[in-house]
Amino acid sequence: MDQMQAIIANLSKHITPSQEAQNYFLSLLEQKEFARKEYLLREDQACRYFSFVVDGTFRAYHLNKEGKETTIMFAISDWWITDMPSFLHNKPAKVNIQALDHSIVLQISKTNLDRLLEMQPVFEKYIRILMQNAYTREQIRVLENLSLPASERYQNFLKKYPQIASQITQKQLASYLGITPEFLSTIRKQFTQGRIS
Amino acid sequence: MDQMQAIIANLSKHITPSQEAQNYFLSLLEQKEFARKEYLLREDQACRYFSFVVDGTFRAYHLNKEGKETTIMFAISDWWITDMPSFLHNKPAKVNIQALDHSIVLQISKTNLDRLLEMQPVFEKYIRILMQNAYTREQIRVLENLSLPASERYQNFLKKYPQIASQITQKQLASYLGITPEFLSTIRKQFTQGRIS
Repeated sequence: MDQMQAIIANLSKHITPSQEAQNYFLSLLEQKEFARKEYLLREDQACRYFSFVVDGTFRAYHLNKEGKETTIMFAISDWWITDMPSFLHNKPAKVNIQALDHSIVLQISKTNLDRLLEMQPVFEKYIRILMQNAYTREQIRVLENLSLPASERYQNFLKKYPQIASQITQKQLASYLGITPEFLSTIRKQFTQGRIS
Repeated sequence: MDQMQAIIANLSKHITPSQEAQNYFLSLLEQKEFARKEYLLREDQACRYFSFVVDGTFRAYHLNKEGKETTIMFAISDWWITDMPSFLHNKPAKVNIQALDHSIVLQISKTNLDRLLEMQPVFEKYIRILMQNAYTREQIRVLENLSLPASERYQNFLKKYPQIASQITQKQLASYLGITPEFLSTIRKQFTQGRIS
């Protein structure tokens, strides 16, 4: 029951559901395991699940027509991940979500999430806070992508997500920052040599 | 009471509050008018309000250390606008929000929003949907910014936001797309000449 403890701890940060509401929520979850490099979601599929990472690491990336790979987001334990536009509107996903390690998730389908919100509206607050945090994070990212040099975005990433930084390759990080691996390597050397502080 | 009708129509798209809940919500709103070029918010102030645009147009932009202006978002009538990280966490705002025309808004303060959600939890659903839509929009924007050429992002903007496109300058649109006005002008000429379809 460790998996359930992990998601209950996440819930408890934001809401205090009744035992009945909590049990109902838990009854709607499906546990799934992914081997390293296995896909939770493939581009062009409809994304059926909103997934809570109990253990492991995921990377969501988009492959454009020219074959250029762009990292959209990462998720580590205690984070939720999905292709939100696809999940909400049953449209083809724009991202691939791949496990970077052996990973365990708890998933809720769109149908079950709708049911949960209808039957136990206390979960509206929980989802509202998740969405609010996600929106805030993306708004800051848009602002930083458009206004900060890559070296500062790199620094901010390390400060905000030290746990993620330690689990991904430099190539993946470069593609998240929207720069080439070569340029990231130059930035890292500048830091090491103390030329940027 | 036209202003109130506008916000009730927006509410009604997502929830059906009781008359009492709706009246309570309306009682928490403050109406404000802004002249063309007047600021709803200045960078480094704490953003105290979540603002519903009844009439008019706003632009949110960030000025970086080098004086480069970046358009973060626009809002027209029937949209909400704020600096979300600043509003939620009472931190200095990262954006300036300026009226592009004479504009009328209905504002709710953070204190009153917290009170509303506590007293009338039906509004959790409303705010959850607003946050969900905002998150989805920003996630698509991050993806497009990192993976699509500027000409396609320009096309997508015109398709998604025709009403906004007709109310802003080319310079403002270029800064939203993260390109120079000169490059936007080149793209527009290519469209006119049918070289991109």
